[in-house]
Amino acid sequence: MEFKAEVRLITECYEGILERLDAGEIVIGDGGFVFALEKRGYVKAGPWTPEATVEHPEAVRQLHREFLRAGSSVLQTFTFYASEDKLENRGNYVAEKISCQKVNEAACDIAREVANEGDALVAGGVSQTPSYLSCKDKTEVKAAFRKQLDVFMKKNVDFLIAEYFEHVEEAVWAVELLKESGKPVAATMCIGPEGDMHGVPPGQCAVQLVKAGASIVGVNCHFDPDTCLETVKLMKEGLQAAKLKAHLMSQPLAFHTPDCGKQGFIDLPEFPFGLEPRIVTRWDVQKYARKAYDLGIRYIGGCCGFEPYHIRAIAEELGPERGFLPEASEKHGSWGDSLSMHTKPWVRARARKEYWENLKPASGRPYCPSMSKPDGWGVTKGARELMQQKEATTEQQLKELFQKQKF
Amino acid sequence: MEFKAEVRLITECYEGILERLDAGEIVIGDGGFVFALEKRGYVKAGPWTPEATVEHPEAVRQLHREFLRAGSSVLQTFTFYASEDKLENRGNYVAEKISCQKVNEAACDIAREVANEGDALVAGGVSQTPSYLSCKDKTEVKAAFRKQLDVFMKKNVDFLIAEYFEHVEEAVWAVELLKESGKPVAATMCIGPEGDMHGVPPGQCAVQLVKAGASIVGVNCHFDPDTCLETVKLMKEGLQAAKLKAHLMSQPLAFHTPDCGKQGFIDLPEFPFGLEPRIVTRWDVQKYARKAYDLGIRYIGGCCGFEPYHIRAIAEELGPERGFLPEASEKHGSWGDSLSMHTKPWVRARARKEYWENLKPASGRPYCPSMSKPDGWGVTKGARELMQQKEATTEQQLKELFQKQKF
Amino acid sequence: MEFKAEVRLITECYEGILERLDAGEIVIGDGGFVFALEKRGYVKAGPWTPEATVEHPEAVRQLHREFLRAGSSVLQTFTFYASEDKLENRGNYVAEKISCQKVNEAACDIAREVANEGDALVAGGVSQTPSYLSCKDKTEVKAAFRKQLDVFMKKNVDFLIAEYFEHVEEAVWAVELLKESGKPVAATMCIGPEGDMHGVPPGQCAVQLVKAGASIVGVNCHFDPDTCLETVKLMKEGLQAAKLKAHLMSQPLAFHTPDCGKQGFIDLPEFPFGLEPRIVTRWDVQKYARKAYDLGIRYIGGCCGFEPYHIRAIAEELGPERGFLPEASEKHGSWGDSLSMHTKPWVRARARKEYWENLKPASGRPYCPSMSKPDGWGVTKGARELMQQKEATTEQQLKELFQKQKF
Amino acid sequence: MEFKAEVRLITECYEGILERLDAGEIVIGDGGFVFALEKRGYVKAGPWTPEATVEHPEAVRQLHREFLRAGSSVLQTFTFYASEDKLENRGNYVAEKISCQKVNEAACDIAREVANEGDALVAGGVSQTPSYLSCKDKTEVKAAFRKQLDVFMKKNVDFLIAEYFEHVEEAVWAVELLKESGKPVAATMCIGPEGDMHGVPPGQCAVQLVKAGASIVGVNCHFDPDTCLETVKLMKEGLQAAKLKAHLMSQPLAFHTPDCGKQGFIDLPEFPFGLEPRIVTRWDVQKYARKAYDLGIRYIGGCCGFEPYHIRAIAEELGPERGFLPEASEKHGSWGDSLSMHTKPWVRARARKEYWENLKPASGRPYCPSMSKPDGWGVTKGARELMQQKEATTEQQLKELFQKQKF
Repeated sequence: MEFKAEVRLITECYEGILERLDAGEIVIGDGGFVFALEKRGYVKAGPWTPEATVEHPEAVRQLHREFLRAGSSVLQTFTFYASEDKLENRGNYVAEKISCQKVNEAACDIAREVANEGDALVAGGVSQTPSYLSCKDKTEVKAAFRKQLDVFMKKNVDFLIAEYFEHVEEAVWAVELLKESGKPVAATMCIGPEGDMHGVPPGQCAVQLVKAGASIVGVNCHFDPDTCLETVKLMKEGLQAAKLKAHLMSQPLAFHTPDCGKQGFIDLPEFPFGLEPRIVTRWDVQKYARKAYDLGIRYIGGCCGFEPYHIRAIAEELGPERGFLPEASEKHGSWGDSLSMHTKPWVRARARKEYWENLKPASGRPYCPSMSKPDGWGVTKGARELMQQKEATTEQQLKELFQKQKF
Repeated sequence: MEFKAEVRLITECYEGILERLDAGEIVIGDGGFVFALEKRGYVKAGPWTPEATVEHPEAVRQLHREFLRAGSSVLQTFTFYASEDKLENRGNYVAEKISCQKVNEAACDIAREVANEGDALVAGGVSQTPSYLSCKDKTEVKAAFRKQLDVFMKKNVDFLIAEYFEHVEEAVWAVELLKESGKPVAATMCIGPEGDMHGVPPGQCAVQLVKAGASIVGVNCHFDPDTCLETVKLMKEGLQAAKLKAHLMSQPLAFHTPDCGKQGFIDLPEFPFGLEPRIVTRWDVQKYARKAYDLGIRYIGGCCGFEPYHIRAIAEELGPERGFLPEASEKHGSWGDSLSMHTKPWVRARARKEYWENLKPASGRPYCPSMSKPDGWGVTKGARELMQQKEATTEQQLKELFQKQKF
Repeated sequence: MEFKAEVRLITECYEGILERLDAGEIVIGDGGFVFALEKRGYVKAGPWTPEATVEHPEAVRQLHREFLRAGSSVLQTFTFYASEDKLENRGNYVAEKISCQKVNEAACDIAREVANEGDALVAGGVSQTPSYLSCKDKTEVKAAFRKQLDVFMKKNVDFLIAEYFEHVEEAVWAVELLKESGKPVAATMCIGPEGDMHGVPPGQCAVQLVKAGASIVGVNCHFDPDTCLETVKLMKEGLQAAKLKAHLMSQPLAFHTPDCGKQGFIDLPEFPFGLEPRIVTRWDVQKYARKAYDLGIRYIGGCCGFEPYHIRAIAEELGPERGFLPEASEKHGSWGDSLSMHTKPWVRARARKEYWENLKPASGRPYCPSMSKPDGWGVTKGARELMQQKEATTEQQLKELFQKQKF
Repeated sequence: MEFKAEVRLITECYEGILERLDAGEIVIGDGGFVFALEKRGYVKAGPWTPEATVEHPEAVRQLHREFLRAGSSVLQTFTFYASEDKLENRGNYVAEKISCQKVNEAACDIAREVANEGDALVAGGVSQTPSYLSCKDKTEVKAAFRKQLDVFMKKNVDFLIAEYFEHVEEAVWAVELLKESGKPVAATMCIGPEGDMHGVPPGQCAVQLVKAGASIVGVNCHFDPDTCLETVKLMKEGLQAAKLKAHLMSQPLAFHTPDCGKQGFIDLPEFPFGLEPRIVTRWDVQKYARKAYDLGIRYIGGCCGFEPYHIRAIAEELGPERGFLPEASEKHGSWGDSLSMHTKPWVRARARKEYWENLKPASGRPYCPSMSKPDGWGVTKGARELMQQKEATTEQQLKELFQKQKF
């Protein structure tokens, strides 16, 4: 590329998210905190709660910094699953109790500190709650979001994101509540082309979210980039049909999941400790970024599995459109060109776009398949039925069923 | 497991590497810095040099800290490829010239700072040099190592590692030089069962290294855990046949590479930007740790691709033998047991050892193969021949050859 | 199984196809002649025409006999692509010109001769014509079918099959014409769930065929068993919605084709000379037979790739329902039980249903993928566009495009 | 190719096998009878005995004819496992007892009848015996072979083949016995590069066989083409080292078996009813034929899995060297050129050598792996040990062990 890595002009810095998007700017999101910090040793898989903001702020800060260097225009506060009901629910493994408020405040402080090292915006994020899943009513669910919003307002985040919702009803409640703040609200659901868990199709989800006040809508998590783009496309068509306007956003998994069912990667047998062979390459991400851009999406980021180098790949792919490269590109040659000095000629020969674009990377796992059947498929009918009657399932029954089951 | 995560007793802290190994203790190494920091945005693939110790010490410090939390008993100074000849050779992309001495000193300071947060030892590391590859003589090659050793002595590292040598001759020179310091020396080669690049078999390599003064010998990098263990086994047998004693060490890749040729993963078409589908899971690492232990290896770590959670997997697998778990196990259930509270019964059903032990993880890539042919195989005979006559190969010729080549 | 292999009672022999189906009997079709005889050396891939009935009657007779022994209740005359326009079109490679009439007559004679060795019915078959594809009108297309029908009437076949139609319009014309004979007519299309080449969905195709006079409808060829069953299910639902009655029929490929596009296996890059890794096992066929039966299909056979042992697998799976096994089961143990006498205990251990039912057979091809992209996808946009403008495509242009194309 | 398919000149017809080979002629063997006839319904997997020569001579005759048409220079009598001890051992499932003599006589008559339709030679074949495996002595084992040899002499076959021996000791006995006839003897073992079941390496096996009187040596069955060629190469080197001369012969499986252990495909979990995805393509066979030829092998055929079209692929690949094509090439275009008239341009584009040579055919089985672990590996240590003590293993114990076993 002919343009150099450089920091954006200061004059752009203080524009808000909507000013940027309205001006046609490409906004780059960040990657997946819970997965990255689980691998680094600071988040527990299962609960997936963000008490690390209090316990190990240096680790959270470092990850934010890496995303900033990689090109993120937005730093999301690490407040995923940080509603009070969730933290209490799962918090029992944390040595001393850390309050919901503390977790959220620390998250805001860290994000702002790092954002100020560049020109990134800080977005306060809320996600789906146990309260909704246990059938609490609108008032109670909104109360959970309000506690987090109070912190976001006190810490003055730049805008708000309601993300990772499986049910559009709860997402709408979240948007309504966040909208009370007067700040711009983005809303992303963790759904695929089949729609939300109650069967509401993506197009309708988008319409409801925009009507509730979201200025930016899209999807995050649960599915791979291709599937997410398919879903956002359906949202876009839904909005067009309803003559509504909104910016589009996409933050998919960094895992290939062509074999997912309706509930996404959680039902894959590999979730969450055997997903490695599915991790996307930087070149997969460049293709995703290009497709997202071509589809009209202007808020492009990632979710679980997205590491800093994946975010950099978005920034590099869209470098020509944006006019600059991220800081971390100092340590990365475009399309492998840093290999052009290698002593072995056949490694030097990899220093070209066509090579990486067309590579079909091998798994090194000849005894493993390329796809797997999501659970709830693979299990015997008897086991599945029993599982679905959750009240009736003792652990013992389940164990027995699984032992009897054929693979 | 019945034992708790806890910090080792202070009384153990000041023992050196050989005291620990002689006492039968299991020493856990750390993971791969260049690959991890490349993904985080601080190391450039191709040169793979460690100027980040000066440019971004916070990033290097954080990675050391994560390995320490994960259970590393040794922190290696991030001085891979930090010999003066290498840094000069490749250093042209670094904005302002950073001296070899500065890089090595900063590496020592950071490693010591973090080591002091626990009871880890600091090991100063040297690796193969461009001087050797361009046929410089023993004196010149040793001079390159001496510059690094001077720093290690000034900074008083606990012991020394000569690692990543493809030729036993150079490795012996390195050991001889390092041995002058009086500190314990470990030596690992990046070779497979076929031996070094001049055809010296692993058993003989081990014998030469021990005769040169190494107290610990083994392999690192270039091959997957299984292949590395096979190589160390040959080294062990060589030493036994020669009636020599040494401790054994293994620091393999965290990539499955059953399809490698003699020169390891560098010749795989996926190197270095498409290796994701080959990344080992934590369960693969637990199997590796157990096999390494059963083979009599007591210095067990990783190389490229090993992230903190992989090192933790070694520490967890060998927890019963060591009597304690690492700090980072606070955020990890043994064999998936953190899933036992999941709301979905089929996810709860994954909270058992048998499940993860037997899982054959899918790649999610049905259009990709499971193995690939190393380059130098896959290329046409004409291209290969021309490539081997390195002097004769202009970039233009090579390009043309590759364009003509059929896949 | 407790029942023995035996020949059906003579009293059943002279019932016609509809009497059998109306009585609830399971009718087993035969397998794929063009593919089987191509491998045996008597049919040329590309033209796929059946002049072997005249040139090598012994080879055709033997294949019929094998299907009869395997359990086929119907022997189809080997008259695939035996319309006069097709034979002329492609016939130039046949040494001396063989007339359409001769080919069809010989086919009838051979089929009847073998059918009389058991109690099978003989079905005269017609398939889609070049006349239709080159836009000839109804009269001309019907004239092509009439020439074949004249032979079938003279030779007094038991019933008629119109098979392998991509366009329901032509299939309807075939049915109308065949129906003039007064004999029962079956009609199968080579379409998938997306419907015919003009976009008519399977349900509507079925309705049109039944209205035109077909007593039996379904699909054959182009897709694997699972996809064919999905299509027949849509046909069944279409008929139910229209309150029409017909017997259902299915004769799929014996190749796994989950990656097919709308036009089926012809567009797969492996067609027709690299399909081996996709060949279904006998156990796959048993699963297919059971699913077909459960779906209400009572005319169950196969198409390209179905060898005699595949047909036997249908007969064995449905042995309990039918009350007898085919002759060829004398040489086959149910679910591998002929292995129970093997000298190696681990081979003996394979003599059980659970083993074969659950086996995930390896390809032995670690350098190959599990799926491929149908052509018209994989080709570059430029090549595809040019290809679609068929008139403009000289062979030379095409060649050049393909040479430039990246894989 | 510029030369036409034609029948060889009559003058060549009466030359014997050694005259042909000595003259540098390429001799093409035939394919695998037991596997082909199992699929056609005439041989039972498990016993694998050839009573079909008596029960269904027309089926055996037809298969011989197809191989002749495909280019076989030699028709082997279908006398595999036709020693008296084997037939008695396994014969209990055959309705009325058929004598060893009858089976062998019928086999000779059928082979000669078809051979006379062309210019093929007839080879009488013997294979390993149950007598040897149950530790009968040399006299008894030779007596079994003598019974078959008596028939071969009476029927005046052209030469003799001792094939499918796992132990060189028994093979040597067979050669010695057959040699008494004065006819040329070929000997092939079903071993891989690791050598025979008692550990005798291939080179030594070849030396012993030649010393015992074999004029042609090599391997057949148990392994894929590549592995077989590797083994024959070792035999060739053994003979060269011993300064012995013999013609080389290779008749491999038509299955890809890179994952086999020492005993070949019998230990693969897919044997014998799930091998389909491993079947080689005609293009794989062309590559095999070329490699075999380049290695100096001049008797090139196939074993289990080789169908007539596979043998034709040998004859086509070596057409330029032989100067003619087989009859069956009338129905086959070289390297797919029969597709050049296809209506779809992308199918026409497959009518070229480069296309098929480079195709990596997909399995269509995304839920299956590419390799599997041979049994005796995959089984638990306990199960394996018990299995090896054959006397102690009741079926019940085995079943229990297998049920406990982890996959």
